[in-house]
Amino acid sequence: MLTLHGFAVSNYFNMVKLALMEKGLEFKINTVFGSQDESFLKMSPRGKVPCLETEHGFINETNVILEYLEDTQGGKALLPADPYQRAVARALTKEIELYIELPARTCYPEVFFGGKVSDEVKEKARADLLAGIATLKRHASFSPYVAGSEMTIADLMFLYSIDLAMGVGKKLFGLDLLAELPEAKALLAKLAENPNVQSIEADKKAEMAAFIAAAQAKVKK
Amino acid sequence: MLTLHGFAVSNYFNMVKLALMEKGLEFKINTVFGSQDESFLKMSPRGKVPCLETEHGFINETNVILEYLEDTQGGKALLPADPYQRAVARALTKEIELYIELPARTCYPEVFFGGKVSDEVKEKARADLLAGIATLKRHASFSPYVAGSEMTIADLMFLYSIDLAMGVGKKLFGLDLLAELPEAKALLAKLAENPNVQSIEADKKAEMAAFIAAAQAKVKK
Repeated sequence: MLTLHGFAVSNYFNMVKLALMEKGLEFKINTVFGSQDESFLKMSPRGKVPCLETEHGFINETNVILEYLEDTQGGKALLPADPYQRAVARALTKEIELYIELPARTCYPEVFFGGKVSDEVKEKARADLLAGIATLKRHASFSPYVAGSEMTIADLMFLYSIDLAMGVGKKLFGLDLLAELPEAKALLAKLAENPNVQSIEADKKAEMAAFIAAAQAKVKK
Repeated sequence: MLTLHGFAVSNYFNMVKLALMEKGLEFKINTVFGSQDESFLKMSPRGKVPCLETEHGFINETNVILEYLEDTQGGKALLPADPYQRAVARALTKEIELYIELPARTCYPEVFFGGKVSDEVKEKARADLLAGIATLKRHASFSPYVAGSEMTIADLMFLYSIDLAMGVGKKLFGLDLLAELPEAKALLAKLAENPNVQSIEADKKAEMAAFIAAAQAKVKK
């Protein structure tokens, strides 16, 4: 059976968890944080979560895990069968990760964990986030899903990136990043009704207080 | 016929160009720089190169283009047929991009174009690059290729990222990033003998002087 390693507050962990649940696959969860311990680095070479344990070995990097599930598992497909449409869904996934999630992430220490980031980092994040949202507006279909009429891996990346990016936009820049993307807000509302999304959200809430306390303690060290 | 949009000095452009050449595919090149012009953003929603023009539309993001070629074109495969080995090759590709190319890229303005980056950016790049190289050492097989006995997309990402990262390491930090990875140096030497790699290098050299002058003019504006 597949085992997903990670923790319920991790947004990337939740992307894979939602894929597994949407596909209706059986899986185990091993709650673990990323680390640079030698034993963990044998599972995940950059020391990050999530990683997926398969009968053949471990797989790291969220989008790679998602592709592996598409390649090997049954259940609901999360990539279109048509190669061009598949490329569009993959490109949207990558764009959300590189141009929204990663820039927002540079500010998480200040926005979520009581730390501080420099003005230089903030200014870059602001410009990058605005460019990232403009890219999404230009490329996504939101009809109703990010890449079209069906849920794809782009929706997983969207769902678990945009909320954090919006937190950064609001707290640091006083911006509503989706102000000109009502269709993206509509998709968030639709996804919030999904029972698997609700279950993941409940698991996240249950773990959140302990996680924030641990992260704040680390930032303040 | 496929048309590859971009320019011969772009490392990501050259990854796709090498894939097309290794597969023995016919393709046209349209020399163009990334831009935020509305007309270009219709081809590439983040304004970047490369992008690939197909009969169905444009595809952006290098690894997505590479996956599309695997999905649709004949010639030499650049991903293993076995799903787990395919995941390993994809993970290595992603790790080299996220943990080596992107951190190095934050310093390109100073290292290659006569600009300046802040000490904060340099210190982060140094730490990220060392962690990225350690990840590669831990995960890559170099037997002789990055992911095993055959060339994969991970070798394309490696070849056209590591030289730039080494330039950053040497010029800013006095470091030989591959000092403890002789097998990676051996792979670079092996790839340098590949006729397609040599052809791409010649095209790059022919365009380099004009490109550097234009980039320096932009940095100094």
